[in-house]
Amino acid sequence: MPLRFSLSSLIVLCSFTAILAHNNEDPTIKTMEDFSGYPIHESHSHLSSLSVDAQSLQKQIDELSSFSDTPAPSVTRVLYTEKDVLARRFIKNLMGLSGLSVREDAVGNIFGRWEGSNPELSAVATGSHIDAIPYSGKYDGVVGVLGAIEAINVLTRSGFKPKRSLEVIMFTSEEPTRFGISCLGSRLMAGSETLAEALKTTVDGQNISFLDASQSAGYTKDHNDISSVFLKKGSYSAFVELHIEQGPLLEEEGIPIGIVTAIAAPASIKVEFQGNGGHAGAVLMPNRNDAGLAAAELALAVERHVLESGSIDTVGTVGILELHPGAINSIPSKSHLEIDTRDIDEERRNTVIEKIHQSAISIARKRRVTLSEFKIVNQDPPALSEKSILDAMVASSKELNLTHKLMISRAYHDSLFMARISPMGMIFIPCYKGYSHKPEEYSSTEDISNGVKVLALTLAKLSLQ
Amino acid sequence: MPLRFSLSSLIVLCSFTAILAHNNEDPTIKTMEDFSGYPIHESHSHLSSLSVDAQSLQKQIDELSSFSDTPAPSVTRVLYTEKDVLARRFIKNLMGLSGLSVREDAVGNIFGRWEGSNPELSAVATGSHIDAIPYSGKYDGVVGVLGAIEAINVLTRSGFKPKRSLEVIMFTSEEPTRFGISCLGSRLMAGSETLAEALKTTVDGQNISFLDASQSAGYTKDHNDISSVFLKKGSYSAFVELHIEQGPLLEEEGIPIGIVTAIAAPASIKVEFQGNGGHAGAVLMPNRNDAGLAAAELALAVERHVLESGSIDTVGTVGILELHPGAINSIPSKSHLEIDTRDIDEERRNTVIEKIHQSAISIARKRRVTLSEFKIVNQDPPALSEKSILDAMVASSKELNLTHKLMISRAYHDSLFMARISPMGMIFIPCYKGYSHKPEEYSSTEDISNGVKVLALTLAKLSLQ
Repeated sequence: MPLRFSLSSLIVLCSFTAILAHNNEDPTIKTMEDFSGYPIHESHSHLSSLSVDAQSLQKQIDELSSFSDTPAPSVTRVLYTEKDVLARRFIKNLMGLSGLSVREDAVGNIFGRWEGSNPELSAVATGSHIDAIPYSGKYDGVVGVLGAIEAINVLTRSGFKPKRSLEVIMFTSEEPTRFGISCLGSRLMAGSETLAEALKTTVDGQNISFLDASQSAGYTKDHNDISSVFLKKGSYSAFVELHIEQGPLLEEEGIPIGIVTAIAAPASIKVEFQGNGGHAGAVLMPNRNDAGLAAAELALAVERHVLESGSIDTVGTVGILELHPGAINSIPSKSHLEIDTRDIDEERRNTVIEKIHQSAISIARKRRVTLSEFKIVNQDPPALSEKSILDAMVASSKELNLTHKLMISRAYHDSLFMARISPMGMIFIPCYKGYSHKPEEYSSTEDISNGVKVLALTLAKLSLQ
Repeated sequence: MPLRFSLSSLIVLCSFTAILAHNNEDPTIKTMEDFSGYPIHESHSHLSSLSVDAQSLQKQIDELSSFSDTPAPSVTRVLYTEKDVLARRFIKNLMGLSGLSVREDAVGNIFGRWEGSNPELSAVATGSHIDAIPYSGKYDGVVGVLGAIEAINVLTRSGFKPKRSLEVIMFTSEEPTRFGISCLGSRLMAGSETLAEALKTTVDGQNISFLDASQSAGYTKDHNDISSVFLKKGSYSAFVELHIEQGPLLEEEGIPIGIVTAIAAPASIKVEFQGNGGHAGAVLMPNRNDAGLAAAELALAVERHVLESGSIDTVGTVGILELHPGAINSIPSKSHLEIDTRDIDEERRNTVIEKIHQSAISIARKRRVTLSEFKIVNQDPPALSEKSILDAMVASSKELNLTHKLMISRAYHDSLFMARISPMGMIFIPCYKGYSHKPEEYSSTEDISNGVKVLALTLAKLSLQ
C-alpha cells in the first residue's frame, strides 16, 4: 500500500530522522512516540494531523440544544426531567457509536470507556455536563461532553491505541437548578458523605424528593444506592475538562486555547426573612415590618461587601429573590434570597460570607423581621491543576500550533470536585464576548475543533504515561 | 292576632304617642315612620328590634371561604377561575332564596333586586366583592355581600316594604390579582371608557385575554359587550358598602361602627428594568448591570419618598418584585416591580409618584440598565361620602344604640368608583388587630351582625327618601 505523505507528515518524518540521530538521554529531545503520542511502530494509513469532524460535532451540539423546556435560542434542561432523559439517551447513543462501553452509576453519572492495553492501570477521564440552567445557552458543559466524545473519535480515526483506558464522563448534574446543589454528580463521585446524607431529605421546589426524581429518570433504587457513587482517590490517573471560557479574555486577546491553573472557590447561601405582611393600603408605614424591603437591603449589602473585598476577583450575586404572597396590595410577609459568591482566595471569600451574615442579622433587627433562614448551602475550597497535566496541555497546544494562555477559571466546574480524587486540568476555548448562562452564548466551530484537538492530544499523552 | 310587645317596642310606642302630641313642623321631631323607617300604618307580626340570623350568616361566610385555590385558613379566589364561578353560583342562590330578582351584566357584576313600591325611582344599592387576593382572609368584601343579603332578610323579616327599590350588588372583581386592574366591575359601571378600551388587549400573567377569561366564566360575548356595563349617573340614588375596617382603630377604641367620610386615593405602577445578565461567577463586578439590584434600589426609594411626604397618611408598597431568569448563578437580566401607593391627599400622592418615577430613571442611569417600563396603571382621586347618607348611617347607629366613629378608609373599595355615579357611603366594622389580606383576618359574628343591622336600617331610610 503506497504511503501518502502530507507536508506536515513529511516534516515530521524529517524531524524524526534528525531526532533519531541524537542522544535520547536529553529530556528535551523527544522520540516520535513522545512527540505525538502515537506509537510509531504501528502502521497507520496516514500520518495526517488530527482531524475533527467539525460539521458533525456542530450538528450534534445543535440537536442536543433542542432537548429544552424553553424555546430556542435559549436552553433549559433540568436534572431528571423529560428533556434531560431524552438528552441522556442521545449521549449514550453517541458514546456507543464511538465504540465506548457505556455504564451509569446510581445517580446517573454516565461513563463511556475505551479499554486500554493496560486496563489494570487507573484510567484517564474527561467530561463535563449537559444540564442547562433556565434560559441559558447550548455550549456550557456540552462542549466538554460532545467534544470529549469527538476527541475519542479523533484518536480512533488516527489509529491511536490507549495504554491507560480512556473514559468520557457525563456528570449527572452540574447546575444547581433543581435541588440547589451544584456539581451533584461530581461531588458524590468525590465521596461527599455530607451530600449523600443530605440527599435523603432534599426536595425540589415542587416538594419532590431527590429519590423520587432520580427514580423517575430510571436511577437510584433506594437511598443506600447513593454512596455507591463514591470513587476512591486514585480511581483516575487524571481528569481533564474541556469548556468554554465563560469570560471574554481569550476572545479579546485572540488566543484559541486557555489552560486553567486554578478554579475559584464557590459558595452559595439561602436566606429567608419573615414579617407580618398585611394590607398595602391600610397598614401605616411605622407599623410595618416588610420582608421584601429587608431582602432589598440585603441584596445591596451583598454587593457592598463584595466590592469592599479589595480584589476584582471577588464576585457576589443575588440571582433569586422571591416575595410572598406576591400581590401588589399585600405587604410581603416573606422573602427568599439565594446568594452566589466566589473568589480565588478562599479566606477573602469566607470573610465576605461572614459579613453577609452579619448584615442579614442587623437588617432583620432594624426592620423588625425574623431572619428565619440563613443557610450556607456550600462553601468549597478552590482547586489547583496538576503540573503534569498542565505540561501535557501546554505541549499539546504547541504541537498543534495553537497559542495558549494560562488562566484562572472563575466559574466552577465538575473539575473542582474531581480534583479531590484525581489530578485535574481544564482546557478553555474562547466564547463570544464571554457571554454565558444566556442564549447569546456562542463558540465558533473552529474554536471548538481546536479545543477538541488539544483535548485529544492531551488524553493521548496522559494515557501513555 | 295578639300583638307581642317587647320592652323596646313599648318604649317606641310610648315615644310615638308623645311625639304625635307635638307639632310636626319641627324637623327635629320625627314621626314613627321617619324614626324607624317602618311604615307604622302597616300591620306587623311583631315590632321587635331588627334581628340578624347571625349563625346562618356565619355558616355562609365559612362556606364561601371554602371556594378557594389555597387551603384554609387562607383564601385565594381569582376572577373568572373555577372557584370564582362556584362562588358566584353560591351568591346567586342566596339572592334568590332572599326573594331577590337576579340579573348579571356582561362582565359578571351580579344584581339582586327587591322591587319597591315606586320602581320608577332610582334604586338604593349596596354591595361589595367576593374575589380574594392570594393567601388572604374570608371577610374582606364578603361581609359586604353576604351581609348585604342578610340585611335584606332583616328587612323582609321585619315586614319592611321599600319605596325605592333595593339592589344588592356583587361586583365582579375588586382585587387586581388577575389583570392588574382593581375594582374592574365598579370602574366599568362608573363608565370608564379608557378601561373598556384597555380590556380589549389586556391579558393575564398566562397571556389569556380578558375576553377569553370572561367567556370561560360565561360572560362577555364580545368586546362590544363591555360598554354595555356602563351606568348613567343617577342610576342609583345612593350606594352603601359594608366592609371590615382593615385597620386597628375600631377594635382598639372599642367602637362597633365606623362611618366613612372619605376613601383614600389609590395608585399603582408597573416597572421593569433590563440589563445584560450573565454568569454569576465569570462576570466581574465592574462589568455588570444587574437588573435585580436596580429593583432593590427602587423598592427602598419608594419607601423613602413615602416617608418624606410629611404625612402618616401616605403609604407605599412594593408587593411584587420578580427577577428573570431567577437562577442562583445567573445575574438578573430583567426585574419587574409592582408598586402600590395611596394617600388621602391626591396632590401629595401624585408628588410621591413623580419622585418614584425620577428615582427609577436615575437608578437606571446609574446602574446602566434600561428602564424598559414605567407604567402608571391607575391614579384615582379620593372620594367623599354624601352627607345625606352619612346622616342616615349615623342615625341608624344611634337608633341601634351602637357607638360610632367617623373615619377615613385607607383601603379603596368599589365605593370609590360608585361615588362617581352615585352618592356614596360606607359602614366599617372592627376586625382583629386590623389584619387584612392575610389568613388571620377576622371579625366576630357580633360585629358583623351590628354592621348588618346598621346597613339594614340605613337602606330602609334611604329607600323611603
